[in-house]
Amino acid sequence: MKSFITGAAGFIGSHLTDALLARGDSVIAWDNFSTGQRDFLRAASENPLFQLVHGDILDLPKLTTAMDGCDRVFHLAANADVRFGLEHPPKDLEQNTIATFNVLEAMRANGVKTIAFSSTGSVYGEATTFPTPEDAPFPIQTSLYGASKLAGEGLIQAYCEGFGFEGYIFRFVSILGERYTHGHIFDFYRQLLKHPHRLDVLGDGTQRKSYLYIKDCIEAMLHVMTIDGESDNPQRVHIYNLGAPEYCRVTDSIGWITEYLGLTPQLIFSGGDRGWVGDNPFIFLDTTRIQKTGWRTKLTIRSSVIKTVEWLGENHWVLEKR
Amino acid sequence: MKSFITGAAGFIGSHLTDALLARGDSVIAWDNFSTGQRDFLRAASENPLFQLVHGDILDLPKLTTAMDGCDRVFHLAANADVRFGLEHPPKDLEQNTIATFNVLEAMRANGVKTIAFSSTGSVYGEATTFPTPEDAPFPIQTSLYGASKLAGEGLIQAYCEGFGFEGYIFRFVSILGERYTHGHIFDFYRQLLKHPHRLDVLGDGTQRKSYLYIKDCIEAMLHVMTIDGESDNPQRVHIYNLGAPEYCRVTDSIGWITEYLGLTPQLIFSGGDRGWVGDNPFIFLDTTRIQKTGWRTKLTIRSSVIKTVEWLGENHWVLEKR
Repeated sequence: MKSFITGAAGFIGSHLTDALLARGDSVIAWDNFSTGQRDFLRAASENPLFQLVHGDILDLPKLTTAMDGCDRVFHLAANADVRFGLEHPPKDLEQNTIATFNVLEAMRANGVKTIAFSSTGSVYGEATTFPTPEDAPFPIQTSLYGASKLAGEGLIQAYCEGFGFEGYIFRFVSILGERYTHGHIFDFYRQLLKHPHRLDVLGDGTQRKSYLYIKDCIEAMLHVMTIDGESDNPQRVHIYNLGAPEYCRVTDSIGWITEYLGLTPQLIFSGGDRGWVGDNPFIFLDTTRIQKTGWRTKLTIRSSVIKTVEWLGENHWVLEKR
Repeated sequence: MKSFITGAAGFIGSHLTDALLARGDSVIAWDNFSTGQRDFLRAASENPLFQLVHGDILDLPKLTTAMDGCDRVFHLAANADVRFGLEHPPKDLEQNTIATFNVLEAMRANGVKTIAFSSTGSVYGEATTFPTPEDAPFPIQTSLYGASKLAGEGLIQAYCEGFGFEGYIFRFVSILGERYTHGHIFDFYRQLLKHPHRLDVLGDGTQRKSYLYIKDCIEAMLHVMTIDGESDNPQRVHIYNLGAPEYCRVTDSIGWITEYLGLTPQLIFSGGDRGWVGDNPFIFLDTTRIQKTGWRTKLTIRSSVIKTVEWLGENHWVLEKR
């Protein structure tokens, strides 16, 4: 099995690369290194089954050439920065929607028909059902990021119907763990390193969010693709929420982080029930569907948060990168 | 009130132009004349409140300049060709998704904050609930057209949340009436003109679809924008299904057309419950939400079909255009 991974040098992409290589699969790793880190692929690059291509998805001819001979695509490359979407609206359109279109066109040109896509719980907008199931009421988008990922989902679904593709759409909560390079723990950790006695927090700290440990995430994706791939009842479009079966408040997360670091900073809340315009005060996905396939999380959110802080502590170089 | 209409020379756009001018509004009509017809704007162009700009939405600088001084935008320009999407995948992406993004960016540059958008019942994919309400379960796309319109909806919603826009999203069924230039009646009429004794029909004729008369459609849009605009409970995103409170089978439609024309052609069905890949065998939208605002259709589907055939009979020139 030869897999093509876009965004392979990213947080999720590099873990997936490692996991596939460990199974003896071949990997073509595609990244433009806009946020990906060469360091994350250091171990992989010593494996003869691994091949790295430095390229941008917006370069469709190069993408098409690079994909030659692959059996399936994991499309993880994205602008994953939800919070600053409004500062540069074209970014989500180009790097998420148009990029996904290009991946599908490159697949079509190469006769590759299986795609796994990193979508997001943000596509539910501000859900009204919690935990939110995959067939929640038709959502209303509240962020350019969510809108651009929804557009990517729609394109994949249309290619499944129109061109006989098989699509795996994974709606992630925020992922935590080793190689985590952006998000609230990153911000908090960096702040506490600079000034250990004070922590500025966006919103009022009551925002409730679910998370998932990176290795649980990778295992979930590969698990359902194996299960569904062997199913007697083949479907073209497979949609799965991916998250822990729990959520926490921002203040819970702060408690775990500061306890681990042995700090008792003064908390300065910016106020309001949202961290920023388009922030979703409650994200908790119903993961019944994937749990029915037999998958379970191994780490709690609390353990994932601590694992993340541990890793940041051992990898201060990523704090300099941004 | 000064309205900017994209696709103003099209079927719906030109009727909307006429309706707004009749109310004494100013109209800037934007069209690239890829499918729009100058003839449809003949009456409008004699009105001093009317201004025509020949331009393509993909030309963002020109679009931005043209929109200067407008109060609201009706974004109707689109690749409305559902059936042939698979023959040219970039077309829906460019003319529907990227075009909508450009309209939103031109609005933002000009401080225009109200947009009405012609979406489609196709965004429900193959619905499981009939009639299908606006908050039906999270749909799975079955056509590039539907996917590109869903992407447009998502973008508009994100601009409403992020930039304080007010968005009216209208999910249309197929529209019928004067200036109708594509769709099954067009195809049937043209065929019967060529060979009155034989009619080739895509699918098995059992496909059930809802329709709406063009003047009912225009009235619906302007009606809810007035009602909601004056509401004490202002919302940023207004989503309305637009369709007749009934549906018909393809064979019903054929019966009405041939009866009107006095023909009894042999029907040759291509077979299957779908006319083409991605065709939806049943489209029937729940219009309870818009009916609650007081709007009602004036014409039945049968009358709309006959009105369409009458108009085609008086306007054979449109048959040559395609």
